[in-house]
Amino acid sequence: MPIVQIDMIEGRTTEQKREMVKKVTEAIMQTANCPADAITIVIREAAKQHIAKAGILMSDK
Amino acid sequence: MPIVQIDMIEGRTTEQKREMVKKVTEAIMQTANCPADAITIVIREAAKQHIAKAGILMSDK
Amino acid sequence: MPIVQIDMIEGRTTEQKREMVKKVTEAIMQTANCPADAITIVIREAAKQHIAKAGILMSDK
Amino acid sequence: MPIVQIDMIEGRTTEQKREMVKKVTEAIMQTANCPADAITIVIREAAKQHIAKAGILMSDK
Amino acid sequence: MPIVQIDMIEGRTTEQKREMVKKVTEAIMQTANCPADAITIVIREAAKQHIAKAGILMSDK
Amino acid sequence: MPIVQIDMIEGRTTEQKREMVKKVTEAIMQTANCPADAITIVIREAAKQHIAKAGILMSDK
Repeated sequence: MPIVQIDMIEGRTTEQKREMVKKVTEAIMQTANCPADAITIVIREAAKQHIAKAGILMSDK
Repeated sequence: MPIVQIDMIEGRTTEQKREMVKKVTEAIMQTANCPADAITIVIREAAKQHIAKAGILMSDK
Repeated sequence: MPIVQIDMIEGRTTEQKREMVKKVTEAIMQTANCPADAITIVIREAAKQHIAKAGILMSDK
Repeated sequence: MPIVQIDMIEGRTTEQKREMVKKVTEAIMQTANCPADAITIVIREAAKQHIAKAGILMSDK
Repeated sequence: MPIVQIDMIEGRTTEQKREMVKKVTEAIMQTANCPADAITIVIREAAKQHIAKAGILMSDK
Repeated sequence: MPIVQIDMIEGRTTEQKREMVKKVTEAIMQTANCPADAITIVIREAAKQHIAKAGILMSDK
């Protein structure tokens, strides 16, 4: 703990994800005051036809 | 907010998902009394061997 | 299945939630083509200081 | 209810998942005192570059 | 990893939860072939008016 | 999108959460290359008897 789940649109590179988990972990360590190895992050990528805002699929915008 | 996460078996068409997010968004707007663009929906599809009911994989039924 | 998780700000009445689950269930039945009793919904309410948009807590807006 | 969501690294066989959902369901039935068919499990598999511990992707370890 | 999230109706005792996390962890260790300390479980309790089946709140059944 | 869900043990102050959502949002903006207002964060707090590691409740450690 903490457990961080990030749902986002597919398409980021592994390098972007590598930086993302590094910086998100630092952000939580510093503010929640917990050790780095207590923090687990799961990234789940979604296709644009699997996300909707205001009732409209991202793939239709 | 609200954030809606829908886990379901894979296999629906994009047209079905398009209608689903439209109608689910309307249902929440009307009852939770919030604007459409505050509502985000994420659909996550699962293979039948990744869902179980009563301890049995859907792919085994 | 489908499983629907709705995270939203606390404060809706039980009557609003009753209508919400009824209408969301109908929306999914009609579009995903599945029986009503296959649909489970979990509502999770969050305090305004537990939700953020653009890096700002809802309780600070 | 209960609804059980398991996020784990990809790579287990269907036979492992079949045993997992059987045993997890039994564990919950026995301890939460609920019937088997009330228990739904969703398994979500993640690639190693989608999970991080201590700020480092599993694929980098 | 694995991360296990269990959403269930409120009302179980701490002793029941203690047994549940013990047995669920054993079930996953044995079948997913991973060490116990890699397994994190989060229990989230919901009031009966926050869960619906077939479009009806559990508190209305 | 992205949607970030953070499950953690209860007990952080509102000031800690305020800083957390600010820094986590910045971390994702910079690395996923998306605008701040596309990022929603939900914090869910859990009591120590609702989290387990290695089959043992945090409240028993």
